[in-house]
Amino acid sequence: MKIKGIEHIGIAVNSLAEDAPFWKHILGLDHTGTETVDSEKVTTDIYDTGRGKIELLEAMSNDSTIAKYIDKRGAGVHHICFEVDDIHKAIIELKENNITVIYNEPKVGAEGYLVTFIHPKSTGGVLVELAQRP
Amino acid sequence: MKIKGIEHIGIAVNSLAEDAPFWKHILGLDHTGTETVDSEKVTTDIYDTGRGKIELLEAMSNDSTIAKYIDKRGAGVHHICFEVDDIHKAIIELKENNITVIYNEPKVGAEGYLVTFIHPKSTGGVLVELAQRP
Repeated sequence: MKIKGIEHIGIAVNSLAEDAPFWKHILGLDHTGTETVDSEKVTTDIYDTGRGKIELLEAMSNDSTIAKYIDKRGAGVHHICFEVDDIHKAIIELKENNITVIYNEPKVGAEGYLVTFIHPKSTGGVLVELAQRP
Repeated sequence: MKIKGIEHIGIAVNSLAEDAPFWKHILGLDHTGTETVDSEKVTTDIYDTGRGKIELLEAMSNDSTIAKYIDKRGAGVHHICFEVDDIHKAIIELKENNITVIYNEPKVGAEGYLVTFIHPKSTGGVLVELAQRP
């Protein structure tokens, strides 16, 4: 598979209202959008660093994966995402190598990217997202 | 301060021998170097994604910050690093904003970068490194 770079770092936050100001006003990152991803029950606030994005993730309900993550591990880095040229090809390659892929068929994620995730048990503890630009 | 992009994502691993193959051979990232950072008691294996690096961090001894991190939280993302244009100016600005900076004087980190860290209590749970290119 061809990795084209770090697309974003996904950060689970307790509250966008309380936690976004650090990224926006202290680091001075460029806020490029806010959207809800209903399939994941999250609101995501997106910042461009110039080389990769920061996505702050706030749970929309208690059964969101982000709420569950914060209950278990606390707020912090939830996943890292790489841009790939061809997500379908990447999934086939990963499965051939016995890597545990969470969605065998890519889903539509934030900003319309086609995405899947690699389970942390296959990566040494990191939830890795792969995303193909729409 | 001026953030120039994501410089790298630092990942605490149990063993480079066991964990590096995923990043190197499955994701196919370009391995650009291995070095020891004696001040942090870590061996770091550096990969270029094309847009930001991945740094795998293995403890050199049990009292390394990485060993302590893994004991407490398990292997996974340890910190994220942004490149800044002027680290001294960034530290002054952060302190003026009551942000907890770990090194008031920058240290020399991997690849000769001048670095400091922002404490997770000031960021919403993420250990953030700032680094100025040497």
